Amino acid sequence: MLKWLSVFQSALAREFGDRATIGVLATVSPDNAAAGRCVVLRELTADGRLIFTTDVRSEKVHHLETNPSAECVFWLPTLRLQFRIAGDATIDATTATRSHQWSKLSPATRFTFYGPPPGTKRESSTDRTNDTNSKNQSVQSVKSVDDSPPPSFAVLVLSPIRVESLDLTTDPHTRTQFARQDGWRPVAIHP
Amino acid sequence: MLKWLSVFQSALAREFGDRATIGVLATVSPDNAAAGRCVVLRELTADGRLIFTTDVRSEKVHHLETNPSAECVFWLPTLRLQFRIAGDATIDATTATRSHQWSKLSPATRFTFYGPPPGTKRESSTDRTNDTNSKNQSVQSVKSVDDSPPPSFAVLVLSPIRVESLDLTTDPHTRTQFARQDGWRPVAIHP
Repeated sequence: MLKWLSVFQSALAREFGDRATIGVLATVSPDNAAAGRCVVLRELTADGRLIFTTDVRSEKVHHLETNPSAECVFWLPTLRLQFRIAGDATIDATTATRSHQWSKLSPATRFTFYGPPPGTKRESSTDRTNDTNSKNQSVQSVKSVDDSPPPSFAVLVLSPIRVESLDLTTDPHTRTQFARQDGWRPVAIHP
Repeated sequence: MLKWLSVFQSALAREFGDRATIGVLATVSPDNAAAGRCVVLRELTADGRLIFTTDVRSEKVHHLETNPSAECVFWLPTLRLQFRIAGDATIDATTATRSHQWSKLSPATRFTFYGPPPGTKRESSTDRTNDTNSKNQSVQSVKSVDDSPPPSFAVLVLSPIRVESLDLTTDPHTRTQFARQDGWRPVAIHP
């Protein structure tokens, strides 16, 4: 296994255990503005790709369509460890992958893919009533299409080209960089 | 006080108390790659600017020199709240600001500004010896120039143009956007 991957996996297990692993995914908007938002790491593949699920109508997908560059940052507060994982993030549209990731989601998370487009304006009271109506309809829909994700559901795959770890428990701090082009060998850099 | 600012301040106090507030600052590299890294929020001004300290030789400063766009993301795990604060980040080079922020740093943090440029390659054993030597010298320097920050020390100011909060404790999740151009009034948007 890749050195950085075993270190990362083991640290995530120690820090989060069975809890969700939340990172911040940085992207670049079509007009070159910086953006970031929390994401849940759904899976870490054996070859080191990071799997997320998202709504195709979300801002981040819009960003990645014009610029696939992304960096996901994980902060592990107990271990005082930071991981930065940079690369290109693309949509995996294969049926098997979509079905597999969909099957692992809770009903509540599945439900979110049947709502209005994320980021659009919400009308106050009327809209809440509509939300409730559409929720009831959607919960039925979700039940009937349980194994088949809706078109709004997307699997996002970040393929790393550079990984960095920063350990704040040592003095001086220990910062290590791994690059795909250098065969992923660890390089110590100044913090 | 701005609505978003009072909500944000109060949430930070409840979540972190006296502990450091750590966010992820997203920037864009000169070749339009996405980047992110953890930062410590040093101060939140009464008019809503976010103050960070950094090394002028760091990657993020290099990024901001060509593209000042930045977004800082805060995840509050206990409250299950996310804040995204976007705007332009610039260096505040005024002597008063630099001295004020410098005066609040611990000796250990001050010391980091006297080391080699962040991100540069570290030579193994020899370099560690040099580190120790330069550390001893630098600790003396830090003592002698206590009130006067070194040239490597920079104060970074993020001036928000858009703020978003996302509350995961409600069903559906509550997402609220505030924009400077709209007088910071809260707008409910779909999560």
